[in-house]
Amino acid sequence: MELPRNIKASGAPEAGIVASSVYAAGHRVADIPVDEAGEWAAKEGHFVWIGLLEPDRDLLLRVQRQFHLHDLAIEDAEHPHQRPKVEQYGDALFIVARTAQLFEGRVTFGETHLFVGSGYIVSVRHGPSTSYTSVRQHWESCPSALSKGEDFILYAILDFIVDNYMPVLEQIEAEVDEIEDRVLVKPMTAADIERLYMLRRDLLRLRNAAGPLVEVCRRLTSADLPQIRSAMHPLFRDVTDHIRTVQEKIDNLREVLAFAFEASLLVGQSQETAIAKKLASWAAILAVPTAVAGIYGMNFDNMPELRMTFGYQTVLMFIVSTCAFLYWRFRKNGWL
Amino acid sequence: MELPRNIKASGAPEAGIVASSVYAAGHRVADIPVDEAGEWAAKEGHFVWIGLLEPDRDLLLRVQRQFHLHDLAIEDAEHPHQRPKVEQYGDALFIVARTAQLFEGRVTFGETHLFVGSGYIVSVRHGPSTSYTSVRQHWESCPSALSKGEDFILYAILDFIVDNYMPVLEQIEAEVDEIEDRVLVKPMTAADIERLYMLRRDLLRLRNAAGPLVEVCRRLTSADLPQIRSAMHPLFRDVTDHIRTVQEKIDNLREVLAFAFEASLLVGQSQETAIAKKLASWAAILAVPTAVAGIYGMNFDNMPELRMTFGYQTVLMFIVSTCAFLYWRFRKNGWL
Amino acid sequence: MELPRNIKASGAPEAGIVASSVYAAGHRVADIPVDEAGEWAAKEGHFVWIGLLEPDRDLLLRVQRQFHLHDLAIEDAEHPHQRPKVEQYGDALFIVARTAQLFEGRVTFGETHLFVGSGYIVSVRHGPSTSYTSVRQHWESCPSALSKGEDFILYAILDFIVDNYMPVLEQIEAEVDEIEDRVLVKPMTAADIERLYMLRRDLLRLRNAAGPLVEVCRRLTSADLPQIRSAMHPLFRDVTDHIRTVQEKIDNLREVLAFAFEASLLVGQSQETAIAKKLASWAAILAVPTAVAGIYGMNFDNMPELRMTFGYQTVLMFIVSTCAFLYWRFRKNGWL
Amino acid sequence: MELPRNIKASGAPEAGIVASSVYAAGHRVADIPVDEAGEWAAKEGHFVWIGLLEPDRDLLLRVQRQFHLHDLAIEDAEHPHQRPKVEQYGDALFIVARTAQLFEGRVTFGETHLFVGSGYIVSVRHGPSTSYTSVRQHWESCPSALSKGEDFILYAILDFIVDNYMPVLEQIEAEVDEIEDRVLVKPMTAADIERLYMLRRDLLRLRNAAGPLVEVCRRLTSADLPQIRSAMHPLFRDVTDHIRTVQEKIDNLREVLAFAFEASLLVGQSQETAIAKKLASWAAILAVPTAVAGIYGMNFDNMPELRMTFGYQTVLMFIVSTCAFLYWRFRKNGWL
Amino acid sequence: MELPRNIKASGAPEAGIVASSVYAAGHRVADIPVDEAGEWAAKEGHFVWIGLLEPDRDLLLRVQRQFHLHDLAIEDAEHPHQRPKVEQYGDALFIVARTAQLFEGRVTFGETHLFVGSGYIVSVRHGPSTSYTSVRQHWESCPSALSKGEDFILYAILDFIVDNYMPVLEQIEAEVDEIEDRVLVKPMTAADIERLYMLRRDLLRLRNAAGPLVEVCRRLTSADLPQIRSAMHPLFRDVTDHIRTVQEKIDNLREVLAFAFEASLLVGQSQETAIAKKLASWAAILAVPTAVAGIYGMNFDNMPELRMTFGYQTVLMFIVSTCAFLYWRFRKNGWL
Repeated sequence: MELPRNIKASGAPEAGIVASSVYAAGHRVADIPVDEAGEWAAKEGHFVWIGLLEPDRDLLLRVQRQFHLHDLAIEDAEHPHQRPKVEQYGDALFIVARTAQLFEGRVTFGETHLFVGSGYIVSVRHGPSTSYTSVRQHWESCPSALSKGEDFILYAILDFIVDNYMPVLEQIEAEVDEIEDRVLVKPMTAADIERLYMLRRDLLRLRNAAGPLVEVCRRLTSADLPQIRSAMHPLFRDVTDHIRTVQEKIDNLREVLAFAFEASLLVGQSQETAIAKKLASWAAILAVPTAVAGIYGMNFDNMPELRMTFGYQTVLMFIVSTCAFLYWRFRKNGWL
Repeated sequence: MELPRNIKASGAPEAGIVASSVYAAGHRVADIPVDEAGEWAAKEGHFVWIGLLEPDRDLLLRVQRQFHLHDLAIEDAEHPHQRPKVEQYGDALFIVARTAQLFEGRVTFGETHLFVGSGYIVSVRHGPSTSYTSVRQHWESCPSALSKGEDFILYAILDFIVDNYMPVLEQIEAEVDEIEDRVLVKPMTAADIERLYMLRRDLLRLRNAAGPLVEVCRRLTSADLPQIRSAMHPLFRDVTDHIRTVQEKIDNLREVLAFAFEASLLVGQSQETAIAKKLASWAAILAVPTAVAGIYGMNFDNMPELRMTFGYQTVLMFIVSTCAFLYWRFRKNGWL
Repeated sequence: MELPRNIKASGAPEAGIVASSVYAAGHRVADIPVDEAGEWAAKEGHFVWIGLLEPDRDLLLRVQRQFHLHDLAIEDAEHPHQRPKVEQYGDALFIVARTAQLFEGRVTFGETHLFVGSGYIVSVRHGPSTSYTSVRQHWESCPSALSKGEDFILYAILDFIVDNYMPVLEQIEAEVDEIEDRVLVKPMTAADIERLYMLRRDLLRLRNAAGPLVEVCRRLTSADLPQIRSAMHPLFRDVTDHIRTVQEKIDNLREVLAFAFEASLLVGQSQETAIAKKLASWAAILAVPTAVAGIYGMNFDNMPELRMTFGYQTVLMFIVSTCAFLYWRFRKNGWL
Repeated sequence: MELPRNIKASGAPEAGIVASSVYAAGHRVADIPVDEAGEWAAKEGHFVWIGLLEPDRDLLLRVQRQFHLHDLAIEDAEHPHQRPKVEQYGDALFIVARTAQLFEGRVTFGETHLFVGSGYIVSVRHGPSTSYTSVRQHWESCPSALSKGEDFILYAILDFIVDNYMPVLEQIEAEVDEIEDRVLVKPMTAADIERLYMLRRDLLRLRNAAGPLVEVCRRLTSADLPQIRSAMHPLFRDVTDHIRTVQEKIDNLREVLAFAFEASLLVGQSQETAIAKKLASWAAILAVPTAVAGIYGMNFDNMPELRMTFGYQTVLMFIVSTCAFLYWRFRKNGWL
Repeated sequence: MELPRNIKASGAPEAGIVASSVYAAGHRVADIPVDEAGEWAAKEGHFVWIGLLEPDRDLLLRVQRQFHLHDLAIEDAEHPHQRPKVEQYGDALFIVARTAQLFEGRVTFGETHLFVGSGYIVSVRHGPSTSYTSVRQHWESCPSALSKGEDFILYAILDFIVDNYMPVLEQIEAEVDEIEDRVLVKPMTAADIERLYMLRRDLLRLRNAAGPLVEVCRRLTSADLPQIRSAMHPLFRDVTDHIRTVQEKIDNLREVLAFAFEASLLVGQSQETAIAKKLASWAAILAVPTAVAGIYGMNFDNMPELRMTFGYQTVLMFIVSTCAFLYWRFRKNGWL
């Protein structure tokens, strides 16, 4: 749901370009066409922030020309389905991150590619994901932060990506809590099993998306990346902590679902046993009238009981009392 | 259950402040307002110990101003739900630890944030957790220990946190022991399954709380943290050993519960089999009178047995003896 | 399905030789017999690219003589069933990679051995695998790339091998998706179980084929291999990323199949329970006419009901209404 | 079962002291009171060997004074339930090891703390464990070994501890072998399950006791411990190998028990199936007389068969032959 | 099956000695008594190769004296049941390897200890294992290889040991393939379960035997072992690759057996369900004549149907057609 922001500079943005602006001293000073970006990025104290959404090859090549980006990075940016990574090409950093959002109650995954170099940052979004317009708007209102430059923007975007995992996990957690309440009192229905199965698959995908981000964030705080000033390291360590918390939550939910599967097997087994006990109990109780009536239904000439005045009533009473006794016994030992 | 301690200095403590005192040569020399803390901390041979309980942003900012704490640390301290960690911001250490206590027989988790710098230590408690007042009181009675300074206080608090895991684990262990006694003799009830499931979840949370503490404690003994004098390293190594023992206990209990689940499946299966055997045995025994009586209940004109004088009695005896034989057979092979 | 390419130079290629050409400045300058390869490889600015398919010992020895290859490498090349590895023998690199392809809808595994040295690259294919002719043809159309030399060819072949894993995984993924749709609604058939079992075995083999390639590719970017110029490192890092993506996909599918097995156990258990409930319900309903009719089939002289005018009809109605009531009860609680 | 050894020197040993002797040139030269130990330890060519059994605080403090031991080590020695570890306090080594022995056929765990410094070794035993008197007696008969000094004694004690794990493991192995013979032929009884469960718990405890010892022994061979001369390293590497063998045995038994659980589930399932088949077969066979006899027990006026001379005999023969046929069928397909 | 080779030198070999020869320039120059071995080993360009089979202590001590072997190594060599390891004692290497062979179709494990020093190699075999006579004979026919010296012999023996794992694994693989064909079509028999269980135990033992060999071989290629010349490193790296392939095969088979267990549970469950469906279907079909006949077997005076001319035939047809209908229904939905 990309809502194009209200552009103040001349010219509507092109298709594929969400925003393309120059910042200086913490303030947006101009919205520029992509083809002037290189020029602006080179100006002392200025940096360019370009946001692209599923750009075509042509647009990517134009951006490449502005910042002398590496061919492989451009090729990667054209083809999503990369693993999260940091790659250093020449004097630019190339970062791949996977994003997770809730769209209409379902988990959807996207991919963001980031190019960071001296004086510029370019974000490329693929697949369903939240626009970074809100990041832009939030930090445009904090000039002191924004004045820190392009590596701060990198932090801001990564932090936003990581924060967006949280509502996804919270929804899954809520579902898990709800299912486990049901599952522990009676065996899972087919719908429960399917839902749990789907949650496990979603968590697997989430782990694959979030897991490698830990390493990406950690590497951004290492000393050998000139694009990230060491003053920014605490910020990136903070993102690393957040993504680790996300990862821990994912791992926990995965374990909890595994517990729920195991518990459900036991609950199911114990219900099967309960049914078997009930079945056996009723079979035993009902076998009594059948057997007794069968005996007195035989056609022997000489069956003295049949001639007794209250033979029938006696037998009926015997049947009823035996059944009642069995019923009481089974009740007592918990089979019924 | 925070019991405000008896303050000797002028002025009752503010909301959010549990204690705020200056120590010198192992003795408390004054209870001070937060806004004088920086001044006192700078005095040679003095250190300030401030204890906060769920402070509001304003109070945190005032503390920050006194000790020039890092913005990110303050932001973290405001928002609990951090993973245990040690972070070095400027010349202050920031430590996050998760605490576990028993409140009314249930495991509850809290979070403690610690700021340690030259001449001060600040503890911030979030969520349900035991007050550190007892730590304060205990060590105020040992001036020789207290005179070691703020890094000793850090040790004392961490040691206290780790010690508090023990009763929690002992209670879980007691429950596990009790359940396993039941579980091995008869299949789990739904209540047993739910209880085991909940114990597993609690242990998962405990592992998440205690696990990263090992790394935190270990890092506190590394050479590159100037806030911890090397004379203190044996103490922190000791805490590391304790938390490792806690972790080992948690892992053991987790494995034992997994064993109990597996054993319970087997016990359940063997009970199902026992019921099936019983059911089959009785079905076989009761099929005898039914079949025999059915045959002599047929209405053929020419059935010589029906005319025999003791036909009925003979058949009855046949039925009884066959049933008795079957009963004896099933008893012998353990089906009944 | 090796289709011998249209050779321009004199002489048809020998058995076991797919191609044997010299390249200079990005263009093929000659197709040569193997026995001149050493000579050409030594020429400044030229490199030789030889492709072999299951060569016999004699051919391997002739190649060995041209490039002074190590005995052990030749012995390995003669005997497939090696683990993927990089080995440095003298000034040649020896690389083993496993390939996976789909031949007529089934996963088949092959092995490729590569020798790379100054001025030459030799590929040896074993078992079913796609020919590298397409790699050759593709890059012959890009002289600028081809002019980079033999280490670029190494990259091109490895990239091709890794790319060929993808359709295999996509087919398995499609099968898994299809099976899991079936499996979650009703218990697996024997055919489903067998298919899942076979998929698991295939994935196990794929993991064994692809897993060690990560390490192989990673080592090719390390500084201590003189055969790979550092300008090529980003290319090999890119292959490393691709093979990691392949590995992640394999691991995911393995986990998903494990989930499917567990879910299937639960679905099967819940179906067993459903059948047991149905069986028990019908047994109960049908026990009513049997028991009642048995009683009124007894031959007592004095059974007043038998003499009643509408006795029979009353009993019939009692039987029918009791059965109907039971049926309604079982429906309501979901047993029927 | 500590049997106080026959002391040759003056004075019976105090409570808590098993032995306290001075050795020189491989021979015991005197049995000494604890309070002279420091003096003797300082003598060139002499070393003191003190063995304590659950000493009280007072005794520990007296020992501490003799050798200037660290407060934390003494505190640890007072409180068992430590994890195995090596700690270096000043110029003394402090080692914690867990011991396992069989007392009356049950596995019991103890703890031994060792202090090793220049000229002395102190062992402190807690809980049930074998006395080191046999170690002392054995090596007193080998003066050449004993003359190597206190680090040799350390080796001797650790070797003895590790050796004592072996009979424990052998007994468990024997039990496992015996249970698995039973378990593979028929499903586990409740007693089997309980026994297996208990063995798993014992193995878990053994792993916790033995596992960290690997690291302890390994560290004793590292170069940075001045208390262990490098000439002793092969001996400690040997102990490391032994404890690794112990650990491997424990891990194997753990896996074997896990296999046994899984196999037992399958055996149980296959028995359940066998019972279900038997039950179904007999139900089918016995349904024949019931159904047939029921039909000829109907009271219709016009049932021609009933009037036939050999109707009854024909029907009887039909019933018998049908039952026999069914029995033969079920036998043939293995259901009976 | 140790076949003593045809000795050319004077004197038959002693008990425990398989061979004891001197080699120079790739040729055997003499068969010597053990007690001259040290002398020969010291000669420039000569090396001694001694093969022992379960030697007694006395023989080991004589060998020790010749080469000045370390006490601990001799003690280890006397007591098998060591873990595979490389140990450097003085200037000799001591290597322990576990061997696996098929003797009469069963997996048996042996142990080989190797001493390698300047000018000699001693192999000590324990337990059932193939003689190294074939290694000796093979390489005696390749003087150029044999002339490389004692470290080459070490390679040759290790390579032989590793190669001998392969037939063992291939037999297990064949068995697994055969069992899995059976297991996927019908549930395991008790014999299948036992066989699978035994295979798992064998694989566990194989893993323990082969696993540590990887580390042993890897260490032999490290720079700090003077006994292995760097020219030999490629050979040892080759053995490392082979043992890794063995290990991979073992791990695969272990996983495949685990899959087979899981699949077998599902197959068993699905068979149980099929039986339950069959049982329920037949119970339902047979309940029809029982219920109907029961009703018309009642003795009410006024039962109009009984008086109808074709009442009996009508009822019979009703019963038959109802049963047929039910049979058709159950067939259609796959219960029968």
